Amino acid sequence: MLLHLSTWQEVEVYLQQSQGIILPIGSTEQHGPTGLIGTDAICADAIARGVGEATHAIVGPTINVGMALHHTGFPGTISLRPSTMIQLVRDYTTSLAKAGFTKFYFINGHGGNIATLKAAFSETYAHLEDLQIPNAHKVQCQIANWFMCSSVYKLAKELYGDQEGSHATPSEVAVTQYVYPEAIKQATLSSEVGSGHKIYGATDFRQKYPDGRMGSNPALATPEHGQQFYELAVKELSQGYLEFLNN
Amino acid sequence: MLLHLSTWQEVEVYLQQSQGIILPIGSTEQHGPTGLIGTDAICADAIARGVGEATHAIVGPTINVGMALHHTGFPGTISLRPSTMIQLVRDYTTSLAKAGFTKFYFINGHGGNIATLKAAFSETYAHLEDLQIPNAHKVQCQIANWFMCSSVYKLAKELYGDQEGSHATPSEVAVTQYVYPEAIKQATLSSEVGSGHKIYGATDFRQKYPDGRMGSNPALATPEHGQQFYELAVKELSQGYLEFLNN
Amino acid sequence: MLLHLSTWQEVEVYLQQSQGIILPIGSTEQHGPTGLIGTDAICADAIARGVGEATHAIVGPTINVGMALHHTGFPGTISLRPSTMIQLVRDYTTSLAKAGFTKFYFINGHGGNIATLKAAFSETYAHLEDLQIPNAHKVQCQIANWFMCSSVYKLAKELYGDQEGSHATPSEVAVTQYVYPEAIKQATLSSEVGSGHKIYGATDFRQKYPDGRMGSNPALATPEHGQQFYELAVKELSQGYLEFLNN
Amino acid sequence: MLLHLSTWQEVEVYLQQSQGIILPIGSTEQHGPTGLIGTDAICADAIARGVGEATHAIVGPTINVGMALHHTGFPGTISLRPSTMIQLVRDYTTSLAKAGFTKFYFINGHGGNIATLKAAFSETYAHLEDLQIPNAHKVQCQIANWFMCSSVYKLAKELYGDQEGSHATPSEVAVTQYVYPEAIKQATLSSEVGSGHKIYGATDFRQKYPDGRMGSNPALATPEHGQQFYELAVKELSQGYLEFLNN
Amino acid sequence: MLLHLSTWQEVEVYLQQSQGIILPIGSTEQHGPTGLIGTDAICADAIARGVGEATHAIVGPTINVGMALHHTGFPGTISLRPSTMIQLVRDYTTSLAKAGFTKFYFINGHGGNIATLKAAFSETYAHLEDLQIPNAHKVQCQIANWFMCSSVYKLAKELYGDQEGSHATPSEVAVTQYVYPEAIKQATLSSEVGSGHKIYGATDFRQKYPDGRMGSNPALATPEHGQQFYELAVKELSQGYLEFLNN
Amino acid sequence: MLLHLSTWQEVEVYLQQSQGIILPIGSTEQHGPTGLIGTDAICADAIARGVGEATHAIVGPTINVGMALHHTGFPGTISLRPSTMIQLVRDYTTSLAKAGFTKFYFINGHGGNIATLKAAFSETYAHLEDLQIPNAHKVQCQIANWFMCSSVYKLAKELYGDQEGSHATPSEVAVTQYVYPEAIKQATLSSEVGSGHKIYGATDFRQKYPDGRMGSNPALATPEHGQQFYELAVKELSQGYLEFLNN
Repeated sequence: MLLHLSTWQEVEVYLQQSQGIILPIGSTEQHGPTGLIGTDAICADAIARGVGEATHAIVGPTINVGMALHHTGFPGTISLRPSTMIQLVRDYTTSLAKAGFTKFYFINGHGGNIATLKAAFSETYAHLEDLQIPNAHKVQCQIANWFMCSSVYKLAKELYGDQEGSHATPSEVAVTQYVYPEAIKQATLSSEVGSGHKIYGATDFRQKYPDGRMGSNPALATPEHGQQFYELAVKELSQGYLEFLNN
Repeated sequence: MLLHLSTWQEVEVYLQQSQGIILPIGSTEQHGPTGLIGTDAICADAIARGVGEATHAIVGPTINVGMALHHTGFPGTISLRPSTMIQLVRDYTTSLAKAGFTKFYFINGHGGNIATLKAAFSETYAHLEDLQIPNAHKVQCQIANWFMCSSVYKLAKELYGDQEGSHATPSEVAVTQYVYPEAIKQATLSSEVGSGHKIYGATDFRQKYPDGRMGSNPALATPEHGQQFYELAVKELSQGYLEFLNN
Repeated sequence: MLLHLSTWQEVEVYLQQSQGIILPIGSTEQHGPTGLIGTDAICADAIARGVGEATHAIVGPTINVGMALHHTGFPGTISLRPSTMIQLVRDYTTSLAKAGFTKFYFINGHGGNIATLKAAFSETYAHLEDLQIPNAHKVQCQIANWFMCSSVYKLAKELYGDQEGSHATPSEVAVTQYVYPEAIKQATLSSEVGSGHKIYGATDFRQKYPDGRMGSNPALATPEHGQQFYELAVKELSQGYLEFLNN
Repeated sequence: MLLHLSTWQEVEVYLQQSQGIILPIGSTEQHGPTGLIGTDAICADAIARGVGEATHAIVGPTINVGMALHHTGFPGTISLRPSTMIQLVRDYTTSLAKAGFTKFYFINGHGGNIATLKAAFSETYAHLEDLQIPNAHKVQCQIANWFMCSSVYKLAKELYGDQEGSHATPSEVAVTQYVYPEAIKQATLSSEVGSGHKIYGATDFRQKYPDGRMGSNPALATPEHGQQFYELAVKELSQGYLEFLNN
Repeated sequence: MLLHLSTWQEVEVYLQQSQGIILPIGSTEQHGPTGLIGTDAICADAIARGVGEATHAIVGPTINVGMALHHTGFPGTISLRPSTMIQLVRDYTTSLAKAGFTKFYFINGHGGNIATLKAAFSETYAHLEDLQIPNAHKVQCQIANWFMCSSVYKLAKELYGDQEGSHATPSEVAVTQYVYPEAIKQATLSSEVGSGHKIYGATDFRQKYPDGRMGSNPALATPEHGQQFYELAVKELSQGYLEFLNN
Repeated sequence: MLLHLSTWQEVEVYLQQSQGIILPIGSTEQHGPTGLIGTDAICADAIARGVGEATHAIVGPTINVGMALHHTGFPGTISLRPSTMIQLVRDYTTSLAKAGFTKFYFINGHGGNIATLKAAFSETYAHLEDLQIPNAHKVQCQIANWFMCSSVYKLAKELYGDQEGSHATPSEVAVTQYVYPEAIKQATLSSEVGSGHKIYGATDFRQKYPDGRMGSNPALATPEHGQQFYELAVKELSQGYLEFLNN
């Protein structure tokens, strides 16, 4: 059940049986010469819809711009500052908590969002308790990173080994190929790729990772792999969501 | 050309020929008993894609949650506070302006966004000049409200007369029916509908407009109407975008 | 009744019979070679006092600096950023709402304030409901732009036709001449005047409108005209205030 | 020279000979049963105009709402939060510093503003240096509290002794009587008056100072005294302003 | 009783008998060629511990970075902006007020903190009343500047006369020598020292006070003096704290 | 070399040979019936000093209040909100970066700080690049969690097995016993201890973890263990700091 394709009265009925909601969150950032700028949002969005179907959960609108400041040296990247993202998450959850939602399951497609999301959750809990919203103390937020699912991780290792890398990975590129086969990109990838450097600011990042990839070989990706990753992630996160609900 | 389905290198090439970008912005808010909660985002998203195709412009990710505080008395609504939205718009435009974009064309699907967007534009211009970004003084933002296109307005009057109303209107519902025919909703609409009241806070809004409609009869909407509105809006806003670019 | 010339005990008595307050808001910004920098504040202040007398309403202190970032390329202009102005309006209304005021009628002298004021109202309603102030849901804010009164608009068209323009207009200059006849300015006005350009940032504005006027010929203004505009605005806004109270 | 009654071209000329500006700041707060709510703004405004005339300095718009949170238990009081006021002062000074002003002389009518103003100055200096505005390092802000002028203080002691008190004082009431003789208020003042308590929050303040006065007997005030205070303050602060300029 | 060396259960017991807490606040800023960068924090910390022992009060963690923006032209200085410090104080006091503390006694070692602390207190009182925390109206904050104790001031005048100066003073250096005799510094001090200039921004400050001292001769300091100052301050502030508690 | 015990001229000399600084960060929060409220700050402070000595690095003032909102249900806890902590970290690093520091090594004693610190680093990098500080692009921040050192982790497992738990752990309590043997606490610990629950808001946390421990048995701690942990952490983090410098 997609929030965007529902009416408020359908939401009202839904809330009588569940207080859970899935919120996909991605990023709009460079993903190397062949990865889509929307990769993280596309993956989160698709997998969240799959989980929503599997669990009869409502799926909110995808947060398609996240915390990608370190990628802003590449054109096309859009980033929120962490302080903005904290306010955004606070606003989303406050709107929904006032209506009765208490379980927020963020299906996340971008490692760079994790820290800020966790900070935002802490800020949100305190804010909601301050507002004295009924059931404020029951509000729980959880991050579910699809790319950290053990089944996903295992398959990526099997298929790609060290060439999975950590950004513009073949696994995430594969998922986007599965979702948008019409947007599979071709480009010559340098055999040399930046790897192993820590992430600091945007200028530094671009110097260390000149084509945007982090130790990855996205040329290994195929739409078929993408489907596999998609199905594994949906299965594992569906279980994760149900456990979260019943926590 | 969709930013989400592009690579950063494609954006780099694009920037050599154009510094314009289209940013769809909608809202996630109740639209009466039969209107989709995502109506404003769906319309903005679809029309922006149409305009992008017609003008070869890049289309950024849809801002699908906007300023809908007055609708938060209805479950399913999500709203940013204006102060958050100003920071969000500042972050989007700053990221893009640093990469070379100077013309931001916001295709907007929600009347409630207009004031905050305009405030955000003012804040943004000053911020970019303070940052001393090259071409900061060339940065221009414009709101293009598809529902205010004269062709759209005229057709709505012809088709619906006074029953167009001002929220959960048949014209916007029609566009969503055209885009998502699988999500056409049926519900009994009261013959009495709130109308003519000014908009203040959320509690007041729900009292004045108990089912969420503002003077509208969305039962008049059809997918065929939706296609007409879509095509008129795409045509008129494509022209508007090109004029904006050449301004 | 002017808040500034009242005691708190007089306000306490007033609140037993009315919860309405008029808040004049202007701007401190260039108004061309002959317009006063305080034009917008002067007009709002004078007209608000007139409305206060006519309706026995209390009139608060004039907010004489508004949102004028686009005029900051001209010396003497002072502007709040929109995000500051939102906090300011929130603070004013919160102070007054805690004391029992619920009807805030902003008599506005500057078009550039409108968007930010509306955004501020939305932020305020939500804030007051969050604070759980008694009667928070009854709080209503309204903008009344004296220069958009139909009677004012009609007279300006009659007197000045196209030379009314949209900034440093003869109508607003006339009102300041009526209020401050000792401060009527003389300067040679170029026969060429910027016109028809959209408003973006401060640098752009000054390029497009080199002497600050927007399509106007303020040399047509006379104090007598000013009195006429003043009286029309007071009459129309007095009626508007009473309707707002009885809404 | 009043900024409000000047044109931007007159300001441009002024800046060639002086970079100083006087900014009056008051408050909108209860001043006991007979003191005007606008007392602090009225005094600052009048004295600033006097200083402006005496020194040929430009006088900006009066900031008539200041930091009066502790008075918000009395109806009619309006207060900025300190964090809002810091942003406001930053915005004022940034607008003016960009145009070339470097010497900001705040003529202040309210003790409660002092701490926040000083905090705002610190924030402002750092902000302007960060913006790399030309002459940022020359920007200087100074508070000039008219009620702390030694000549004023001495006369108040002579005329009123201990009955001067520290809020709703006969000296400030006298100045308002001189400026607005038509608004002299009569009320029975209790012979018992709160005195000597420190200032904390609004609820506490109203308990300690039930009629709003702090140890004062404003019944002693006369318009003639007001004129004396006015003239002393104008003289002393005029000298102070010139010393500040030549610092 | 040091909060850092206590358990939460000990705090729970403490709260049954007292709602007071001592919060030391200093600064991390240059103190001339021989003064320690931590001088203000060291003094506040040591004296607060002494007062805590004398009065059986709980002493919270030392806020060792304060408002020192004007010293940031010297390496090693760290400063909060005033707006950050206001939020910090709000967070400290809110955490503690929710647990039942109502009396906050800030033992302060840095003149530059005073304005911002006072602004923060005002913001805090209003915030806590808005949160509707039980006993919010009983919350009281007080600044106790050890260097302004009359006994300290008198001794400094006796020992150093005019050479006490106002920053990097022999009295504060003496206290640090008493607390950290192993960190007594030697350096040649110029016989010329900046004096009498007002404090504005960081660049200006360093120009006026090239070695960081303000009219002081810290070479006069001895650890024995330091012990005297320490004991006087502890005695006077212990009495001050008890009066504050019983207020 | 402790920043607090240095002069600005010593810092100036230091900067000629190193641009690195160690910033200890802890928390002020409940640590169960026998753990000190200052545990996290005490450990970070002590270990940072050890690392500073071993590596000749300068050690800044300990940030002794961190992000502990989830512990605020227990008296004595003080927490910053994440949004405040982001501003605080920004202010610290900006002050120091302007003076020439580029390598910030945060020795952290509290797991709850990690997310917000990382968010703050991202915000800081972007801020410094916006300020156009020289060497902004060289600024690097790193978190070093002493309790995550592999040598520490291994010893904790050997000594305590599963009774190490994850909050109020015997290993951190042991370090505080080593540092403050005079503050070793005795209390009866329930044999039942909350364990395995995720962390959400403060009310929820206290319900799940009624005495504040998370699966730990701090009764196993000894000062001798503490010394071992201290020495292992100092050794491992000293190496980590040197690698960070040479990165």
